[in-house]
Amino acid sequence: MMSDFFADIPTIKYEGTESTNELAYRYYDKDKVVLGKRMEDHLRFSACFWHTFCWPGSDVFGGGTFNRPWHRGANDSAAAAEKREVAFDFFQKLDVPYYCFHDIDVMADAANVNEHRRYFAEAVDHLEKLQESSGRKLLWGTANLFSHPRFAAGAATNPNPEVYAFGALQVRDALEATHRLGGQNYVLWGGREGYETLLNTDLKRELDNFGRFLSLVVEHKHKIGFKGTILIEPKPHEPTKHQYDFDTATVYGFLKRYGLENEVKVNIEANHATLSGHTFEHEIATAAALGIFGSIDANRGDPQNGWDTDQFPNSVEELTLAMIEIIRAGGFTDGGFNFDAKVRRQSIDPADLFYGHVGGIDVVAKSLLAAAAIIEDGRVDAIKAERYAGWDADIGSTIGGLDLAGIADLAVERDLNPHQVSGQQERIENLINRFL
Amino acid sequence: MMSDFFADIPTIKYEGTESTNELAYRYYDKDKVVLGKRMEDHLRFSACFWHTFCWPGSDVFGGGTFNRPWHRGANDSAAAAEKREVAFDFFQKLDVPYYCFHDIDVMADAANVNEHRRYFAEAVDHLEKLQESSGRKLLWGTANLFSHPRFAAGAATNPNPEVYAFGALQVRDALEATHRLGGQNYVLWGGREGYETLLNTDLKRELDNFGRFLSLVVEHKHKIGFKGTILIEPKPHEPTKHQYDFDTATVYGFLKRYGLENEVKVNIEANHATLSGHTFEHEIATAAALGIFGSIDANRGDPQNGWDTDQFPNSVEELTLAMIEIIRAGGFTDGGFNFDAKVRRQSIDPADLFYGHVGGIDVVAKSLLAAAAIIEDGRVDAIKAERYAGWDADIGSTIGGLDLAGIADLAVERDLNPHQVSGQQERIENLINRFL
Amino acid sequence: MMSDFFADIPTIKYEGTESTNELAYRYYDKDKVVLGKRMEDHLRFSACFWHTFCWPGSDVFGGGTFNRPWHRGANDSAAAAEKREVAFDFFQKLDVPYYCFHDIDVMADAANVNEHRRYFAEAVDHLEKLQESSGRKLLWGTANLFSHPRFAAGAATNPNPEVYAFGALQVRDALEATHRLGGQNYVLWGGREGYETLLNTDLKRELDNFGRFLSLVVEHKHKIGFKGTILIEPKPHEPTKHQYDFDTATVYGFLKRYGLENEVKVNIEANHATLSGHTFEHEIATAAALGIFGSIDANRGDPQNGWDTDQFPNSVEELTLAMIEIIRAGGFTDGGFNFDAKVRRQSIDPADLFYGHVGGIDVVAKSLLAAAAIIEDGRVDAIKAERYAGWDADIGSTIGGLDLAGIADLAVERDLNPHQVSGQQERIENLINRFL
Amino acid sequence: MMSDFFADIPTIKYEGTESTNELAYRYYDKDKVVLGKRMEDHLRFSACFWHTFCWPGSDVFGGGTFNRPWHRGANDSAAAAEKREVAFDFFQKLDVPYYCFHDIDVMADAANVNEHRRYFAEAVDHLEKLQESSGRKLLWGTANLFSHPRFAAGAATNPNPEVYAFGALQVRDALEATHRLGGQNYVLWGGREGYETLLNTDLKRELDNFGRFLSLVVEHKHKIGFKGTILIEPKPHEPTKHQYDFDTATVYGFLKRYGLENEVKVNIEANHATLSGHTFEHEIATAAALGIFGSIDANRGDPQNGWDTDQFPNSVEELTLAMIEIIRAGGFTDGGFNFDAKVRRQSIDPADLFYGHVGGIDVVAKSLLAAAAIIEDGRVDAIKAERYAGWDADIGSTIGGLDLAGIADLAVERDLNPHQVSGQQERIENLINRFL
Repeated sequence: MMSDFFADIPTIKYEGTESTNELAYRYYDKDKVVLGKRMEDHLRFSACFWHTFCWPGSDVFGGGTFNRPWHRGANDSAAAAEKREVAFDFFQKLDVPYYCFHDIDVMADAANVNEHRRYFAEAVDHLEKLQESSGRKLLWGTANLFSHPRFAAGAATNPNPEVYAFGALQVRDALEATHRLGGQNYVLWGGREGYETLLNTDLKRELDNFGRFLSLVVEHKHKIGFKGTILIEPKPHEPTKHQYDFDTATVYGFLKRYGLENEVKVNIEANHATLSGHTFEHEIATAAALGIFGSIDANRGDPQNGWDTDQFPNSVEELTLAMIEIIRAGGFTDGGFNFDAKVRRQSIDPADLFYGHVGGIDVVAKSLLAAAAIIEDGRVDAIKAERYAGWDADIGSTIGGLDLAGIADLAVERDLNPHQVSGQQERIENLINRFL
Repeated sequence: MMSDFFADIPTIKYEGTESTNELAYRYYDKDKVVLGKRMEDHLRFSACFWHTFCWPGSDVFGGGTFNRPWHRGANDSAAAAEKREVAFDFFQKLDVPYYCFHDIDVMADAANVNEHRRYFAEAVDHLEKLQESSGRKLLWGTANLFSHPRFAAGAATNPNPEVYAFGALQVRDALEATHRLGGQNYVLWGGREGYETLLNTDLKRELDNFGRFLSLVVEHKHKIGFKGTILIEPKPHEPTKHQYDFDTATVYGFLKRYGLENEVKVNIEANHATLSGHTFEHEIATAAALGIFGSIDANRGDPQNGWDTDQFPNSVEELTLAMIEIIRAGGFTDGGFNFDAKVRRQSIDPADLFYGHVGGIDVVAKSLLAAAAIIEDGRVDAIKAERYAGWDADIGSTIGGLDLAGIADLAVERDLNPHQVSGQQERIENLINRFL
Repeated sequence: MMSDFFADIPTIKYEGTESTNELAYRYYDKDKVVLGKRMEDHLRFSACFWHTFCWPGSDVFGGGTFNRPWHRGANDSAAAAEKREVAFDFFQKLDVPYYCFHDIDVMADAANVNEHRRYFAEAVDHLEKLQESSGRKLLWGTANLFSHPRFAAGAATNPNPEVYAFGALQVRDALEATHRLGGQNYVLWGGREGYETLLNTDLKRELDNFGRFLSLVVEHKHKIGFKGTILIEPKPHEPTKHQYDFDTATVYGFLKRYGLENEVKVNIEANHATLSGHTFEHEIATAAALGIFGSIDANRGDPQNGWDTDQFPNSVEELTLAMIEIIRAGGFTDGGFNFDAKVRRQSIDPADLFYGHVGGIDVVAKSLLAAAAIIEDGRVDAIKAERYAGWDADIGSTIGGLDLAGIADLAVERDLNPHQVSGQQERIENLINRFL
Repeated sequence: MMSDFFADIPTIKYEGTESTNELAYRYYDKDKVVLGKRMEDHLRFSACFWHTFCWPGSDVFGGGTFNRPWHRGANDSAAAAEKREVAFDFFQKLDVPYYCFHDIDVMADAANVNEHRRYFAEAVDHLEKLQESSGRKLLWGTANLFSHPRFAAGAATNPNPEVYAFGALQVRDALEATHRLGGQNYVLWGGREGYETLLNTDLKRELDNFGRFLSLVVEHKHKIGFKGTILIEPKPHEPTKHQYDFDTATVYGFLKRYGLENEVKVNIEANHATLSGHTFEHEIATAAALGIFGSIDANRGDPQNGWDTDQFPNSVEELTLAMIEIIRAGGFTDGGFNFDAKVRRQSIDPADLFYGHVGGIDVVAKSLLAAAAIIEDGRVDAIKAERYAGWDADIGSTIGGLDLAGIADLAVERDLNPHQVSGQQERIENLINRFL
């Protein structure tokens, strides 16, 4: 143990469903084999720096409630080092294989370009050592291009090219650091890449600048030999009124426009999905159908609140539906389940950080078991296959070979009067519920 | 006048803002030249059959309130003919140059393929005569592939290929009728092209079937020599839980995927835009930036109601913002302003149909005048241009020629510390308000 | 069995969780004792006429898909009788103790007041016999004051007093029929008691008319000796733009205003709760706190769709939270769980009606078991009690006896500097998840 | 002028609609008489401390952008004094008669009860002098019971009675300060009076504590002789998941429950209204109908964003509808139009604070003129009166004297078959548009 912040918390272990220990896993048994793969390899859990170690418990209407030791003074090199050590202590005790960070999450506050580079380099050196000593790996790195006031009008889409250049510097350095630390992916969340009002915005120019920026990142990735995946994280709005990476389908069109659809995938966040008017599983299924499914930011929103609440996932019902789509998509390659989730502002104890993550991990693990059982059972898939059987039959293949007039003529010649069949939604929903 | 349904209503004329006549135009002066073009040519107004002549005033919780003469018995050939005549009487008295229809809007109810073709042909013959006698033109035609129970699970995305074939027949015939009637566009609104639950849905297969269907339509258009534009009308949901043509950006990605981005454009509806989490002007600006802006379905939603209320537009403030984007996009080519709007269920009088349209037309016309004045004034555009000036200066062009590392190095070498400038949103909003 | 519509469906029985029979209960074991009461007595399940036997499978964009035998011709006395028989067959096979109806659900279409009374009386006679022969009971009756065009502008809040009088007639007759049939409650859902636009609405007058109407109903209830509970069903909007019975808190204020808070309770519908910006459990907890909790309309909405989807409940996670509040409120007295839910428009088979209800009943039953276990476990309640312990200690009771200045002075004298304690939300959510 | 922060900004004056001065009023002519009252006396404009002088331009995803001089160091007595002086300079230059504040807005940061009292007293002394020298008056004061971490779980509804006591101290002192400063109202916004999860919440106990707290405030008001109005400001959520003062109707029920409906009114905020699922004008009309209309927090939300954006009002169309209701309610007595609005985070210049307020004031003033013209025109009111005419006729008064059975019998005897009349919504909307 490197710090005593979590001194009272033991390493979290799998103890099975009968365990009464609130700080044990009841479903997440990392070595258990499910659908031919260890749970750990399926789920590739990650914890993040920002919500768990950087956020002080503030919100728009009130100040920080957490009072962590490393937040009591300035965020200088010593405070940042303490934070990194506590974080790795956490990752180890939680026993998740991966972690994630933004550049500024892990470093001292910098006043200019040179300080930024120096403090970030300092942090990366330390992270490298901490990875080694702890056995933890980097799921992805990223650059924070939204918190500093300079990014108020965006980074890659900023009207001011100097800000664009500052963003390019941060991304170059964060991408190279990610490469050096063995990161599996590199993420871009365009939190301020959007607009507050169309009235002062040149939409086309901003999109083109954004497209070029992304192309440069992809080019640089190849230049330095980074083999991980570049990921875009869609979100419809907040902090901006409108964000360009609105949802998965929008990102797909953007990638196609700039010829990047084979280079970049999406990192799908549950709460972002629902804010954009979709279910979580819809976003996954869409990404899979379009060939751009990458990774997951696990959390949940509040259906009555119209902002990103970033709560820990706690619904096996919802996550099972998502997990079915992930399994159908072939599971993760480079991606994983990163907890982009924060404990509530009143959850001020160090133990609360564990309750949040342990609960979330177990919910995801239980959902994997349920999804695997549903797929192994086969009934739901069979109903679906039967529903489309006509497309594999004579009529389907005939239609497949005709043009519009040919198909229309066929409808007339055969006097088609298609009879309806039940969609069986309630029956399928009941079948799903059997496995939860 | 062909029927006496609107006997009490005079032809609507422009009388200027001082007129106290509630059935006159106060802003829509069709021959007035604005930005070098007659208002009529700018706005290309159209009225529609469905809401105005087919819908009986029903909703999910109650039956029809309108009690139109042609709804009192079966919708046979005589009733359909009466409806068509009343409609053209309306188009003429409203003095809009265009109208729109779905195949089943204008014809008698059909029990099978052959009846469908016969009754539709009968209707098209009549429409051709009515166009000629009235001087009205067709903005666009379309096929209704969502009302009949056979389309409950979609048309182009139906699990049953027979339904797909039935849809192909309707589209082929409606496209050819549109061609024959001199239609300026052909529209596809995929009201049931989506899903109720992912659990019984093969998303990828449905998208591919949908893509192929659209490709066949485009191919057929060229084959028959139709020069009009093929339009997709985005909507996020309703009646389905999720509709594939969610919004403009989604449609763009879909078109790119199937190589149709130069063949198909979008017909943007105000109420669909807001249901999908966007402003109306956002959808127009996005379509323009992506090169797929086609036409407009004018109406408005209710910000407190989560469904398509299809009310008549009545906000000059909102439409001016939309009109600015339309003008910036170069205005309409084949498209126009079609009123996809319905009077409220309690607005049962024939005169109410006129109040709705006259008010809507005047609001759009006033918005055109305001938008033109804002653009001619130039201050808003100047603020925007100034905001991006850096991209046209040395720093911008230098960045334009560098790769990621080059830009990052430039940030370091110049020790960039971009100073913030005001986005001036409140000032711009005040400037806009000066013209309303 | 009275009809052969459900000939293929056996009576649904409890078979336990291991049963593979899709038409059996796996959790609903009506005689099982939970928290000292039989499940049947806890849950008091009811099925309804309207969605299950009257709705033809139509929606705003398309016609009926169900094609039930009794819908094929006019809704005359014979058709209505057939529908009633099929419905009772269903109630019996489902083995729910209760059912619900609107007046017009069960009767032939009427052209005027006298026909309304005659056909309704005919239906009630039949219902009485069917109740007797089937052993089913009436949970509640109600009058439909929203479907007929005459109610387009409301009933009790209609600008036209003749419509108000017509509504009074229907309510009087439906209330008396409910009394005669041994109904446990009488419900008023004010589907059109609201407005489309404030611009033509005298809000205060309408509220006062509505208050008086409700007072007359309460007075009549006592006059005829009806011992059941009068229930208002809140809903925020749809079909109207705004409905006066927006949510439970609004109804409470309305009842207080007209002195009816001890006479009328609420019938809470899950989907209405979420449309009004609340969780289902919030509405129950609020009603309980305010002393007006009455009954439940069980269903679910779709979080991505802004209208009343009235789907069958299928979330044990959500219903367990609701059930905890119901148990804390002391459970039902006159109320029960009525399925105000409809199968999807594509679920056209008679069996689908059973899948929907059987799944819903089992979800509710499993939720009761989970909620009971959580309450018996006691940990969640203990955390909550500990959280408020200060109010039962010295400081709490001291404060309880002081005025504002006294409390303020106490804060100064004791130099209060309250230390924060964790709200433990994640820990509690984990505890809840143990029981699901 | 007391500071040089706004040195470049002249006092804002009325210059008429033809003025090209962007820092002049074009509609707000304070001495112009409208409906028999000076505009200044109608509108009673106020500016606020918090958004305009305390907020640093931060949001959930980024730090402060404004860099005001008084924010550069600690918020000590000197910084607070500078802020107060700049604020009064602003109020004077804007020439609004009123201002508003929270206790902590105007004072140095306090570490404990005694510091709170000392620094607040210091601030109030200064405010008294500033009021005198500037001729500005206090519209309302309030205590901030939501920003400090101690209030994370609420103040009056906190599980910890010590926090309740601390809140009582702040309210007592803020109420007495408001009294001393001649405040016209005292406001309570219960930003944290709500819950994050029902699972750790004793809803009934919290409501009762909240009710008692409010009763103590009312009692204290009378004790000290404060003649102003006590106002509750409704909001549905944010920062909490659910806030007890959800909307006007909820507050009314709460007041009735604790017998305070004649003692307390509402301060309605436009953006809170829309977040709760209502229009702004609905909340005003409801408050007026229930007799609790008090004051207005003027701002606007963004219909696509689900949080409180607190933008400056810029829609004459929306505000005219609100203004009609305010005039119908008899206008303000103690209340006024307070700008609870903030410039966008990118609007960093001192001038932007003026653009925001000047634009907002002119929009409200123009709306007053429009509403007055609509009311003086009389057509809209006449249509409405005609709509309800039946209630003043024989049938209406007959019904008014009968019980339920009597009314039902009347419907039968007269064989009522109410004919429908048009609701004329489109016509009325057109009439309204004539005045905008």
